[in-house]
Amino acid sequence: MVLVNGVEDAGVPAHDRAVAYGDGVFRTVEVRAGVARHWELHYAKLAADCACLDIPCPDAAVLRDEVLRICRIEHDCALKVIVSRGAGARGYRYNQSPDPSRIVISAPLPDYPERYCDVGVRVRLCALRLAQQPALAGVKHLNRLENVLARAEWDDSEVAEGLLLDGEGNIIGGTMTNIFISRPGALVTPKLDRCGVAGITRDRVIRAAMRRGVACHVGNITWRDVLDADEVILVNSLAGAWPVREIEGSTRTPGPVVRAVQQWLAEDDAQNG
Amino acid sequence: MVLVNGVEDAGVPAHDRAVAYGDGVFRTVEVRAGVARHWELHYAKLAADCACLDIPCPDAAVLRDEVLRICRIEHDCALKVIVSRGAGARGYRYNQSPDPSRIVISAPLPDYPERYCDVGVRVRLCALRLAQQPALAGVKHLNRLENVLARAEWDDSEVAEGLLLDGEGNIIGGTMTNIFISRPGALVTPKLDRCGVAGITRDRVIRAAMRRGVACHVGNITWRDVLDADEVILVNSLAGAWPVREIEGSTRTPGPVVRAVQQWLAEDDAQNG
Repeated sequence: MVLVNGVEDAGVPAHDRAVAYGDGVFRTVEVRAGVARHWELHYAKLAADCACLDIPCPDAAVLRDEVLRICRIEHDCALKVIVSRGAGARGYRYNQSPDPSRIVISAPLPDYPERYCDVGVRVRLCALRLAQQPALAGVKHLNRLENVLARAEWDDSEVAEGLLLDGEGNIIGGTMTNIFISRPGALVTPKLDRCGVAGITRDRVIRAAMRRGVACHVGNITWRDVLDADEVILVNSLAGAWPVREIEGSTRTPGPVVRAVQQWLAEDDAQNG
Repeated sequence: MVLVNGVEDAGVPAHDRAVAYGDGVFRTVEVRAGVARHWELHYAKLAADCACLDIPCPDAAVLRDEVLRICRIEHDCALKVIVSRGAGARGYRYNQSPDPSRIVISAPLPDYPERYCDVGVRVRLCALRLAQQPALAGVKHLNRLENVLARAEWDDSEVAEGLLLDGEGNIIGGTMTNIFISRPGALVTPKLDRCGVAGITRDRVIRAAMRRGVACHVGNITWRDVLDADEVILVNSLAGAWPVREIEGSTRTPGPVVRAVQQWLAEDDAQNG
């Protein structure tokens, strides 16, 4: 099901700046039993990302109604919510009275095997290095060719995710996930001030750790740090938290840290959505 | 006028990867008196850029017919030709039997004043630094948020263009133009192997210089080099070649080099397109 500015099955105007320049932002929302999980967090992030690009975020009630319209029909789905700067004249310049577009699309939930959460996933290191652009770092914008190229590096269905370094050798995350590693007494997740996407599940884990008095640092993580870590955990809205069981040949078993993170997320799901 | 996969006034499917990820490439073509200028060069660049992204470029005859359909109605326009990877399932991964989309849009030609070519343009230096991504450098892809953000830095209609540096202080070009500077006995234009877009007019100037035995180097250019240059020239398909008459307060008058470049382009127009 597709809603473009509230119109079912409409196309996106060819003049829309999403098409021309990827001039917009998006969210991927898990819908279960007709509920758009953690919608408030998704909307808050959408609004923050819009602000980074100077796009007026559509009204919360309008967007929420469109999400609910789809949830009523597609009870279990992956919902993509795109906000673009809208139609525009030719050229990079945008006018000061924009009319943002809302594009809401349902797709089947990915059929990740149960074992991804239980025994963990196999991951690889991507050859592509993420470019550093502080002006766009952390934002889930529509310029995603780096992710597309990185994901095209492997075709082995046994490999669930590829990890990405920046040009200085810092691990930033996976092509579609954020990463945490465990160090004695602390969780660590990469700083995303020069590249990468700061997802809401990363945020939920950071806040859950804080509430429980578990140290969670945001800092630089090298590839070596990942290989040396007791536990490596990948998170996103559709996956939840996956332990990494194999990285480029080096294996490990899921430990207490990923089980705690999974538990935190489950408790947060139960309380907040 | 809009053609989406040959269908007039159609929208772009919301599932198209141009919308989701900016997963495609484009050209901006000058149409004068019903002729799409230098179409062969544009198509060759489109095909090369598609190859960089592993997108099968639509057949030359099909795309040409669509361009001609619009040229027959819109005799003088700026034609935007977009090729995307087409519709796809959710997720960054693309399937191996893609069905690329063709989007052809006409827009009014920009109303650049005559004096831009004659006495030159005023330009500024943008604060945004271009990120370095060798895998995408030179390609005119649809991930253009950097250009959007850079163009949003100024609102002074007297400033025709903004110049962009990479993170290491090399000048890469303007937000919508390629740059040449003159040194004694030679033209120089930036290497575009880590960022920037290699436009066809840049290529036409390089080849025109070569044919005439004029040295034209592709190399690193710093901001200092731009300020020190006798002549600074900006080129693209709609502008032709503009002399720069003022850069951040430092002024100059158009010299023999830009006149030669304009002459070369005019001769090439007469012969090829």
